[in-house]
Amino acid sequence: MDGVLIKNLSAHVGEEVTINGWLYNRRGSGKIQFLILRDGTGLTQGVLVKGEKPELFDDAKKISQESSVRVTGVVEENPKSPGGFELQVNNIEVVSQTEDYPVTLKEHGVEFLADRRHLWIRTPKQSAILRIRSEVEMAAHEFFYQNDFIQADAPIITPNACEGTTTLFEIDYHGDPAYLSQSGQLYNEANAMALGRVYCFGPVFRAEKSKTRRHLMEFWMIEAEAAYFNNEDNMKLQEEMVSHIIKRVLKNRSAELEVLKRDTSKLEAVQLPFPRLSYTEAVELLQKKGHEFNWGDDFGAPDETVISEEYNAPVFIHRFPTNIKAFYMKPDPDDENVVLGADLIAPEGYGEIIGGGQRIDELEMLEQRLEEHQLPKEEFEWYLDLRRYGSVPHSGFGLGLERLVAWICGLEHVRETIPFPRMLYRMHP
Amino acid sequence: MDGVLIKNLSAHVGEEVTINGWLYNRRGSGKIQFLILRDGTGLTQGVLVKGEKPELFDDAKKISQESSVRVTGVVEENPKSPGGFELQVNNIEVVSQTEDYPVTLKEHGVEFLADRRHLWIRTPKQSAILRIRSEVEMAAHEFFYQNDFIQADAPIITPNACEGTTTLFEIDYHGDPAYLSQSGQLYNEANAMALGRVYCFGPVFRAEKSKTRRHLMEFWMIEAEAAYFNNEDNMKLQEEMVSHIIKRVLKNRSAELEVLKRDTSKLEAVQLPFPRLSYTEAVELLQKKGHEFNWGDDFGAPDETVISEEYNAPVFIHRFPTNIKAFYMKPDPDDENVVLGADLIAPEGYGEIIGGGQRIDELEMLEQRLEEHQLPKEEFEWYLDLRRYGSVPHSGFGLGLERLVAWICGLEHVRETIPFPRMLYRMHP
Repeated sequence: MDGVLIKNLSAHVGEEVTINGWLYNRRGSGKIQFLILRDGTGLTQGVLVKGEKPELFDDAKKISQESSVRVTGVVEENPKSPGGFELQVNNIEVVSQTEDYPVTLKEHGVEFLADRRHLWIRTPKQSAILRIRSEVEMAAHEFFYQNDFIQADAPIITPNACEGTTTLFEIDYHGDPAYLSQSGQLYNEANAMALGRVYCFGPVFRAEKSKTRRHLMEFWMIEAEAAYFNNEDNMKLQEEMVSHIIKRVLKNRSAELEVLKRDTSKLEAVQLPFPRLSYTEAVELLQKKGHEFNWGDDFGAPDETVISEEYNAPVFIHRFPTNIKAFYMKPDPDDENVVLGADLIAPEGYGEIIGGGQRIDELEMLEQRLEEHQLPKEEFEWYLDLRRYGSVPHSGFGLGLERLVAWICGLEHVRETIPFPRMLYRMHP
Repeated sequence: MDGVLIKNLSAHVGEEVTINGWLYNRRGSGKIQFLILRDGTGLTQGVLVKGEKPELFDDAKKISQESSVRVTGVVEENPKSPGGFELQVNNIEVVSQTEDYPVTLKEHGVEFLADRRHLWIRTPKQSAILRIRSEVEMAAHEFFYQNDFIQADAPIITPNACEGTTTLFEIDYHGDPAYLSQSGQLYNEANAMALGRVYCFGPVFRAEKSKTRRHLMEFWMIEAEAAYFNNEDNMKLQEEMVSHIIKRVLKNRSAELEVLKRDTSKLEAVQLPFPRLSYTEAVELLQKKGHEFNWGDDFGAPDETVISEEYNAPVFIHRFPTNIKAFYMKPDPDDENVVLGADLIAPEGYGEIIGGGQRIDELEMLEQRLEEHQLPKEEFEWYLDLRRYGSVPHSGFGLGLERLVAWICGLEHVRETIPFPRMLYRMHP
């Protein structure tokens, strides 16, 4: 249907255009009315002066919040209007008048809003977050394309568990048990041996009984894997990807970051290369700061926060103890007690956003690890084939999309970074 | 690790470079050896002359198929070499010698290959298909970005069924039954009311007991939805998207299409606008061609093939009978027996690749349809809210990625269009 998007108003100054949208809010007095309109791409205002069009002015007063309207008028620049432009209204077509819209402009509790997520996402803050999420996704695809990575989608329905079986959602696959994937990594490794550099980008699932601000039952992961990449190549790839994403969001989504009142200086400060700290150095840092922490333990959220506060950019912590990491992680040839892997910790207390590392490429060592981790070897025969036939050094990583978006947007909780979050006690709507 | 990708060899003519890859094949005589190398981005050949480097020549003879090798040599142009360039080999580092590689260069049966899918994807044909799939995905993202669509990921774990409950995979969601999504459409509609124009792009699931060359249990759908789009806008969007994807694949993946021996004239013939045929006209066409077909029946694969053979481009069939289409399809105000929807049928017998249409935007009619289809109204209350609060005309569609890729690549079966297909009797590897 004919119309102009609010985000494109700047190209139509002086012209009469139609906005296809909804009434978000109304301001003004008895003599002048400002209709705050939204269309999903931004906000603008429609201006009505009673003295000029008394009938239209009175009709407009009856339009309720969140009614759908097609508003026609002449575009003018106005720095005081949301978005910097406004419409001198000549006509309004009410497509559908709304009654008793529940998500009013006052404050609402989180449970109330979560029950009405399909309406909550219409608010400026929530829609800004979702536009930024989309920009992050596009930035990731662009980065991988430019760096010769092939998107190779990993299966969701899988017969085996990548990192243990305790937190899996099970399905009945025509009579056989199957599980929802927690990671595409093992398949990524197979794809990397065929296509060189690959990534998958899709939903993964963890049936964790945890209820923290960093966890969802269903979330999206960007997982990359590259043949002939060692752990150093891998860290370089990660920091370049994160930097590319941040730069693109700053460039294309400044209006949205402003809606969120995000301190963008924190994002602009992210420069390459990211600092690199060995696990052992990180432990020393924690101890120096008076934290009780023993070499060999895994970091918790408070530990990550203390470490990240030392830096303006995300920080790599590499060479974790071998026995707190996954079975496929390659030990450092210089010290077999630690692995050639790294976690990337976001600044400002946002915690781990990436886990990655070099994979074991020797058949015997991998077989031994499967045994140590009591994993069923027959389910991993195809994965072992990757070491039997043309094995090469290779590395990869997994980035949690929602945590990255939460950091970029400066949000308290990951639940606002995805249109319809799935949490421990919520799968509606 | 240092090296040059095979696809970038043209930029290094005259230079000594290293290829990090695998030995795919070997040709030659007792005096000259051609090592056919692959690295996931393409094929090239390494040339060795016995008279020049006798020791290297003999060592190279011992390298077995699919061994991983780092081959260093000087790049030369040679139109007879795969990819048009070759390497005058100076050094070979065998990273891992392979023994008894099962997927030899002779013909194998499909079941044999499917059991070894993780190795099968290394062959030139399969890796070409997967690179084209990736290009299609990128082309879709690019198209939507350029047309102001926001990627808004739909949930996979859902409490309700979009199109009936008989073909659902069920999971236990912390004590409640839940289902794997068959379509993101209902969520897309909610997102479109918030963000204007949206799409989701992810896996969907159908537990169908069918075993055809067009069906997978797990496949990827591109689903778009736009507020203030009518059925005409929707068809225009679809044809522009399909045309954009075809053009980009032709431009960037000509080498892969050549590997597949695809007759690209069939793809180049696809021009805008696509032909549009009403269902009633399509029925008349079938009858004229001597097919037994009654108005009111749904098309089967043979019917679609007959219709598509009339055209060089995909063809829209619009205004299907209301009672063979989904509950949310908007009836044509001019004839309530048909809906404002269209299927897009690919040429060359590839069948339906898109289903789409305008949605019912009136609350009462939608409530009535839920009742007629015996769907539980309480599960759809949030969806009905979209008609209660600011309802607008809106339309959308769903494109089956694997069918589109099968057509573009000219494949018999969709199972080769995805890295790890999930079929009725197969979820390994």
